[in-house]
Amino acid sequence: MAPFAVTPNALDLADLRTRIDTVLAGSLRREPTTVPAQRGQADELSTALADFVLAPGKRIRPLLCVLGWHAGGGSGAEERLWQLAASLELFHAFALIHDDIMDASDTRRGRASAHRSFATRHADRADSEAFGTNAAILLGDLALVRADEILHAARLTPQQSEAVLPLLDAMRNDVIRGQYLDLLSTGTVTDDIERALTVNRLKTAQYTVERPLQVGAALAGAGPDVLRACSAYALPLGEAFQLRDDLLGTFGDPHVTGKSDCEDLRSGKATVLVALAVRRADRAQLRQLTELFGDPRLDGDGAARMRRILEQTGARAAVETMITDRQAAALAALDRAAFPPRVDAVLRRIAATSVRRTK
Amino acid sequence: MAPFAVTPNALDLADLRTRIDTVLAGSLRREPTTVPAQRGQADELSTALADFVLAPGKRIRPLLCVLGWHAGGGSGAEERLWQLAASLELFHAFALIHDDIMDASDTRRGRASAHRSFATRHADRADSEAFGTNAAILLGDLALVRADEILHAARLTPQQSEAVLPLLDAMRNDVIRGQYLDLLSTGTVTDDIERALTVNRLKTAQYTVERPLQVGAALAGAGPDVLRACSAYALPLGEAFQLRDDLLGTFGDPHVTGKSDCEDLRSGKATVLVALAVRRADRAQLRQLTELFGDPRLDGDGAARMRRILEQTGARAAVETMITDRQAAALAALDRAAFPPRVDAVLRRIAATSVRRTK
Repeated sequence: MAPFAVTPNALDLADLRTRIDTVLAGSLRREPTTVPAQRGQADELSTALADFVLAPGKRIRPLLCVLGWHAGGGSGAEERLWQLAASLELFHAFALIHDDIMDASDTRRGRASAHRSFATRHADRADSEAFGTNAAILLGDLALVRADEILHAARLTPQQSEAVLPLLDAMRNDVIRGQYLDLLSTGTVTDDIERALTVNRLKTAQYTVERPLQVGAALAGAGPDVLRACSAYALPLGEAFQLRDDLLGTFGDPHVTGKSDCEDLRSGKATVLVALAVRRADRAQLRQLTELFGDPRLDGDGAARMRRILEQTGARAAVETMITDRQAAALAALDRAAFPPRVDAVLRRIAATSVRRTK
Repeated sequence: MAPFAVTPNALDLADLRTRIDTVLAGSLRREPTTVPAQRGQADELSTALADFVLAPGKRIRPLLCVLGWHAGGGSGAEERLWQLAASLELFHAFALIHDDIMDASDTRRGRASAHRSFATRHADRADSEAFGTNAAILLGDLALVRADEILHAARLTPQQSEAVLPLLDAMRNDVIRGQYLDLLSTGTVTDDIERALTVNRLKTAQYTVERPLQVGAALAGAGPDVLRACSAYALPLGEAFQLRDDLLGTFGDPHVTGKSDCEDLRSGKATVLVALAVRRADRAQLRQLTELFGDPRLDGDGAARMRRILEQTGARAAVETMITDRQAAALAALDRAAFPPRVDAVLRRIAATSVRRTK
């Protein structure tokens, strides 16, 4: 074996995930040293945050950050990388906690969502529902503050700050804008495919895939060519990922996906899938879509009728084609990118599994 | 005149406030360059944030940051100071927007609160109330993200980052913990004075006075003695400030304060004032307090009865004494601090006006 050979599991995803969790646990299971301990129930917030963040998760954003670092030629002292990666996960916890409030979602990762869980723990209060929501707003806020704290603890060099922070800021602005557009669109029957794609791009392609990769690469000191190569791979892949997610949300097997196959239709989620169906619907189909879509009382029969329309209009097949095209574009981008082989291999694996998945 | 004489208005508060507003407006009235413009309604969030932040305000936290910088011997290139000060104001906008959701407050600074204003602008939606709340959660989130963005744009040196960021992080943790304790306490009739003082310390003394002063001083490179002197002045003054606020919230003239003199009692705000009354109440008074405090239907008569109890138990007079003691402690701290005269003078003026005020 050559002396500098890369060990086979250098980019083993499970291994990387464990290291990310270790950094997160180290940061969350102790109180920040800057805050003198306040006795009593205020600690409930810190505990709730640790429980939320440390519940098993895919850690897709921190993983992509680590991969970006390798793609950018990163080597040597990795301490900052792990803190930056952990900071992305904490930021994501903030986004999830607040999204769940806005969507009135009762569950998250197979457990009660944060606001439900606070409401249950304080069921003795007359205002337990409102209290749960308010406490969850604060919990999300705390997650964002802690994301910054761990970022500050990383002590980026001025060069790293200049390269990394504008990307992070862009990512944070993107996801908030995407969520706002999503709020505006939810519940309206529209054929505005471009708008659905914009939300997809902001909330998934950029926020979940492109920026995490770029942030890691920028930390490693990558130049503009590498950052562009990251985008060329990430944007189509992220779009494909979300399109698959939309299909699974309506055509997936709830026993496999772990979530309802009616919820997106019931809440009136403005997906590309639905926009395509609206554009292609005949008069009778459009009348049914308008009647059923976003109806909070939508039952299994109604959902089945909607699914038939999504099929008959060819919307489902069109989304499958969009996914295939985008996956091909992501892989072609990798061909051109010439990332280090061990990074290239993992990114190909991610492209394959995230697009073909059943959950 | 000596060649290095300080111009008389070097620390003119109105002048400083104008400069802070200019930095804020410059940052908020243009889109961040990192985010490609998204056409359409997503810009509503940015506009709403600019409107909220740029509405006339006291700018107390940025002002104290500037004063801290002078107290710490700051001089020369001030660009970073103004950005840091503006970042504090944006963070405060985040806190206010989310607090107003939690308190279900309809107004802020004489206008509709953020969630009310979104609900009104989108009154055509069937879910306009929920939409208003959700949009305001996002608006608060955006304010925090922009607070970071302006902080990043300041490009602190590594030495400045090491001095300033832990204080900022502590401040942010403090206010979230304080707000959570406040949520927990609201509506309960308790004689827990210590707890009410803890909320006061976290949300006002530390968040509003101590940390902004220290952050400015730390930016200027001040040593631990100056930071301690900032605390010695700020903590008693901040407590006095909040105690005065509590008195005005119940005994103030609504025409002068611009807010209801029943709202604190009606919402069950757990102030030191009420905790003192509960501790000193006889059986009959306690029965009345328990019946009236936190009653959402509390009317003018009920409020008047409560005010009488707050007087008869001596709680109101005790709070006045606490205010006087704390003001004296803050002034004594200034005597010991030996801050530059022009800073000292302004801090004395702030101590006088913030404690004697009628609004």
